[in-house]
Amino acid sequence: MKSHNVAIIGATGYTGSELLRILISHPTVNIHAVTSNTHAGKKLTEIHPQFKGLLDMELIAMSDLRPDELDLILLALPHGVSMDFVKDADYSRCKIVDLSGDFRLDSAGVYESWYGLKHNFPQGIDDAVYGLPELFRSKIKESHLIANPGCFPTGSILPLTPLIARGVVKPSGIVIDAKTGVTGAGAKPKLNTHFPNASENFSAYGLKKHRHTPEIQGTVSAFAGQDITVTFTPHLLPVNRGILTSLYADATGDFSDEELQTILSDFYKNEPFIRIVDHPPVLQQVRGTNYCDIFATCDERTNKIITISVIDNLVKGAAGAAVQNMNLALGLNETDGLTLMPAMP
Amino acid sequence: MKSHNVAIIGATGYTGSELLRILISHPTVNIHAVTSNTHAGKKLTEIHPQFKGLLDMELIAMSDLRPDELDLILLALPHGVSMDFVKDADYSRCKIVDLSGDFRLDSAGVYESWYGLKHNFPQGIDDAVYGLPELFRSKIKESHLIANPGCFPTGSILPLTPLIARGVVKPSGIVIDAKTGVTGAGAKPKLNTHFPNASENFSAYGLKKHRHTPEIQGTVSAFAGQDITVTFTPHLLPVNRGILTSLYADATGDFSDEELQTILSDFYKNEPFIRIVDHPPVLQQVRGTNYCDIFATCDERTNKIITISVIDNLVKGAAGAAVQNMNLALGLNETDGLTLMPAMP
Amino acid sequence: MKSHNVAIIGATGYTGSELLRILISHPTVNIHAVTSNTHAGKKLTEIHPQFKGLLDMELIAMSDLRPDELDLILLALPHGVSMDFVKDADYSRCKIVDLSGDFRLDSAGVYESWYGLKHNFPQGIDDAVYGLPELFRSKIKESHLIANPGCFPTGSILPLTPLIARGVVKPSGIVIDAKTGVTGAGAKPKLNTHFPNASENFSAYGLKKHRHTPEIQGTVSAFAGQDITVTFTPHLLPVNRGILTSLYADATGDFSDEELQTILSDFYKNEPFIRIVDHPPVLQQVRGTNYCDIFATCDERTNKIITISVIDNLVKGAAGAAVQNMNLALGLNETDGLTLMPAMP
Amino acid sequence: MKSHNVAIIGATGYTGSELLRILISHPTVNIHAVTSNTHAGKKLTEIHPQFKGLLDMELIAMSDLRPDELDLILLALPHGVSMDFVKDADYSRCKIVDLSGDFRLDSAGVYESWYGLKHNFPQGIDDAVYGLPELFRSKIKESHLIANPGCFPTGSILPLTPLIARGVVKPSGIVIDAKTGVTGAGAKPKLNTHFPNASENFSAYGLKKHRHTPEIQGTVSAFAGQDITVTFTPHLLPVNRGILTSLYADATGDFSDEELQTILSDFYKNEPFIRIVDHPPVLQQVRGTNYCDIFATCDERTNKIITISVIDNLVKGAAGAAVQNMNLALGLNETDGLTLMPAMP
Repeated sequence: MKSHNVAIIGATGYTGSELLRILISHPTVNIHAVTSNTHAGKKLTEIHPQFKGLLDMELIAMSDLRPDELDLILLALPHGVSMDFVKDADYSRCKIVDLSGDFRLDSAGVYESWYGLKHNFPQGIDDAVYGLPELFRSKIKESHLIANPGCFPTGSILPLTPLIARGVVKPSGIVIDAKTGVTGAGAKPKLNTHFPNASENFSAYGLKKHRHTPEIQGTVSAFAGQDITVTFTPHLLPVNRGILTSLYADATGDFSDEELQTILSDFYKNEPFIRIVDHPPVLQQVRGTNYCDIFATCDERTNKIITISVIDNLVKGAAGAAVQNMNLALGLNETDGLTLMPAMP
Repeated sequence: MKSHNVAIIGATGYTGSELLRILISHPTVNIHAVTSNTHAGKKLTEIHPQFKGLLDMELIAMSDLRPDELDLILLALPHGVSMDFVKDADYSRCKIVDLSGDFRLDSAGVYESWYGLKHNFPQGIDDAVYGLPELFRSKIKESHLIANPGCFPTGSILPLTPLIARGVVKPSGIVIDAKTGVTGAGAKPKLNTHFPNASENFSAYGLKKHRHTPEIQGTVSAFAGQDITVTFTPHLLPVNRGILTSLYADATGDFSDEELQTILSDFYKNEPFIRIVDHPPVLQQVRGTNYCDIFATCDERTNKIITISVIDNLVKGAAGAAVQNMNLALGLNETDGLTLMPAMP
Repeated sequence: MKSHNVAIIGATGYTGSELLRILISHPTVNIHAVTSNTHAGKKLTEIHPQFKGLLDMELIAMSDLRPDELDLILLALPHGVSMDFVKDADYSRCKIVDLSGDFRLDSAGVYESWYGLKHNFPQGIDDAVYGLPELFRSKIKESHLIANPGCFPTGSILPLTPLIARGVVKPSGIVIDAKTGVTGAGAKPKLNTHFPNASENFSAYGLKKHRHTPEIQGTVSAFAGQDITVTFTPHLLPVNRGILTSLYADATGDFSDEELQTILSDFYKNEPFIRIVDHPPVLQQVRGTNYCDIFATCDERTNKIITISVIDNLVKGAAGAAVQNMNLALGLNETDGLTLMPAMP
Repeated sequence: MKSHNVAIIGATGYTGSELLRILISHPTVNIHAVTSNTHAGKKLTEIHPQFKGLLDMELIAMSDLRPDELDLILLALPHGVSMDFVKDADYSRCKIVDLSGDFRLDSAGVYESWYGLKHNFPQGIDDAVYGLPELFRSKIKESHLIANPGCFPTGSILPLTPLIARGVVKPSGIVIDAKTGVTGAGAKPKLNTHFPNASENFSAYGLKKHRHTPEIQGTVSAFAGQDITVTFTPHLLPVNRGILTSLYADATGDFSDEELQTILSDFYKNEPFIRIVDHPPVLQQVRGTNYCDIFATCDERTNKIITISVIDNLVKGAAGAAVQNMNLALGLNETDGLTLMPAMP
């Protein structure tokens, strides 16, 4: 018997279906309910035919949810909508892992200036812990409201934090050039994600104002002991999944590749989902998995530290991290359900 | 402790890496040895970086293999090479699942006319069973030499056999138009699989003489009670994985979609990896899994039965089927290691 | 000075932009007006940034069109809308090439049964000529209303007609398995053309009821001297452009590849845009051009004639054919503006 | 009659076929000879089936070339091989545009340290002019040996030079993050360009040591009046064609987007192939053309100037630039043969 009950709120987006993919095989957690307001009453497999024979349940309306039967809620709603749900929920009883951006930033003020939206539950921001287990594991275990990190921040913070914390790079002038697969733009068809517009194409977007920028800055600043601003430019890759992040920062000295690997390996010692690699990693090697693979090198000619990191935006960048946080919050093994094999190619 | 030991011979191709992906999570089977003549002595993760932290073993030369320590060998060598290995092996002791085409056909004569190659171990053809569990399960359990089916034959035989066996279609004039992802062409770079030549492109190949044709004909003929010839045309899709097979045959009468579904569902009752679906399936819904999804309909205007089936060519079309055969041959649960979740998209 | 004035009605879809791409370089035809009801008043380059510096004109509303200043109208509206425009137009004065399906079929009755839509201008069907220059050139020159062929019919009729007309294949039991790039589904984002749903995917659609079926049947029947029904199954390829059509028909005798090539070459002697090739053609070799490349072979084992043909669905399958028809209708050189080079890869 | 005769040396690579695509339509230049040592004696269309009916000539061996019949040679050989050809050629008589990297750098010493290869014709380096018409037009007109720029340098130098020359950015700390389509890696199949390894994948390569780095540095330094070093990281995109370059440099002050556009537009006033755009450009909008589209913006938060530029690596990044140089060297209109329409999508 599976010992814990969870619900997935908003199961028809990519994050929702990825949570399902992972939880179906979870050893101790039961998918008790799956909601979709648009498709309530339909069979889950009408929306996700791939799960035929694997999960034959019905989608319910959010109003039919019974939180008293649940141990934890995985909240996969859009930002702005999520905060209303959390505001009305009794998360002191039933923990919440929120996958939106609503509770990730430092304050309602920062939220409002980057999201262009009034935050109507600032108490939630105070209550929430930033759900990056590699940096905030002990807090996550105790918390009742976990703000699951954004996909770009995960790919940026994980390589950058150790370099900042160990004094390898200077805290100013950092450039982050990130490239994401199209699932990062969501399941809803848009003009720029129409196949003929995205295939055999490539573009930068959200220059200077992407909402993940303050999330990166806020988290890294805490480890720098000073306010850090970063230049962050996302790009849209013609692939389904994955984020590759190229990060450039000024070195504080000379570092061999081996030294950099040692610093990173020491920082992430015993981390089950961080792999420090000795060649620039490719997107495919983490596809479908909860890994973040990180490479670092120093360009002595220009005195820049360059890091290349890869994640699967839907797993370590969303659903996998959420399950990792769920495991911590429920007192389970952190890796339960997350030993996902990379399917390469 | 894992109870059975297997070796993978030829681990650097796509079939080899896919066997690894599946067996790493297998509950009772231990990967005892992995060979590669080109890369013997290297760490497996040098060739397959995706397995870092998951399988840290060394590749050995085939000559260092100790069959007496093994329960079964998964043979992933090219056709023509495979038959030499089998000829010299004592498969009465250590069973073999051969993933090449060397032991799939009815006779050395048929082999030689389609492969243009002399068969130097006809006894193996007599000893081997055709490893399609849905049709030959009981024989597979008893056999010591299992010829794992080709990818195209799997996608063709599974929809066609029930229709032939139940008299739904006439046995002549059958047209099979199949489309495969590029991994079907192997891991070795060639001109037609060079990215710029395959991407934004599509082509038919091997017209009239693809080696999988006699494999389809031989197997289906057994169920038809007469010799069947089929027109088989494979095409190269710009995707990594998957085969979609469109099959056209003359109907023997009028059949509603529901009737066709019932016939297929009855035929494959209790089959864990066959899903009869009520919409034409898409490639992605079986990606990474051992499923074969099948749809059938009758075009009353033209009196043709049309079936659309999808498999992952590397899983149900190769490594997954091999593990299914291995499970049967070793007396394990047939689905062990094969509850693979589809990662869609 | 360019001697003839044309207007493009509906310039924001793929057919519209492709007409622009071709006509910008046309030696004698002037793009006099371009309409878009949604974007009237905007600069064309706001919608099509690729034309910056090449065509700096403004989009106008359809109501601002002045047919008296025009020699010909290229009508790129959706079916159902197109017929209203034609009904109200005085095409005895200003010729029309209609790129929709509204005037391609034999009768309003056939139209209504396949399009599920009442035809409100049957006279147009009588007045229109089917705009496939290779088969109906002399009529096109004289006509005032030209129904530009559908993309699938072009790729199917061109290989099939000579084989039927020369008695090479039997007129019954013909199977057409066609594969199109995603631009074939139009410029408007939909669920099945959302990049993550189309990339690394492949599917059949419109089984048994695609609207291009009667168009193929009607045209080929005229050359067969009897009513022909065909089984037609379209598939969606993860490429932007191109249609590859695999066609299967029963041979009336034995034909060598050379004989088949000779029959086709003779039939299309002097045709500037038909190339009979001696290897199965690939999609890329006609990409961006007005060519239809055709290969034919006979499978003696099964007595089937197999043809493989390729076109660019937006050029020979739409805008290129329309310009070819326009050239004929205006008495210009048929190839003007159409010596488009294939960009491969 | 076409007035000038040119030869293409090495016509079977992507640069060679792209030169053919452009020159077939050139109004005054005749393709007099096309060489290929591997395929000499074959018809060109055996190697490039797309040109059937467009260019029916035979490939000849390099030794059969008659330079005395030529006005100019387009040299599309690999670096290292090219220098030998140039050394033995009498380019005082028949001009040469060399598309390799052999004559682009400042000295044999710089060449040898980045290419790891002894330069055996340093005189050629002295004789050659760097063939970027936008910066060195008058020299190109007079020169007999033109070193056609690399693809990455073209995409980097064109946005960077005006900003350096006008004092908009500081000359130190510049980061160039470039992304190229797979044709940039050549026509020869390799492991990393094998479709399954490149599709649904993305990677950085050549970190810190790509050979295009000194080419960028050398050219820009000339305009900076001081030695400039840049951090340059190329990445491999799963697309066939195109380079998008994201460039980051420290601003010397505050600049609005309009100011930056004006500075760039003034610098490139009258340039037929530079388009300054007011939105970040996408790869497709220059596909198949000789354009370089450039966007620039200033991130006031971090004081960085960001530029995004796009080119088609095979056209403006190779064959198109070569034809532009050829036109200049032969005294023709600079844009002859280069009014190529973008096929989007």
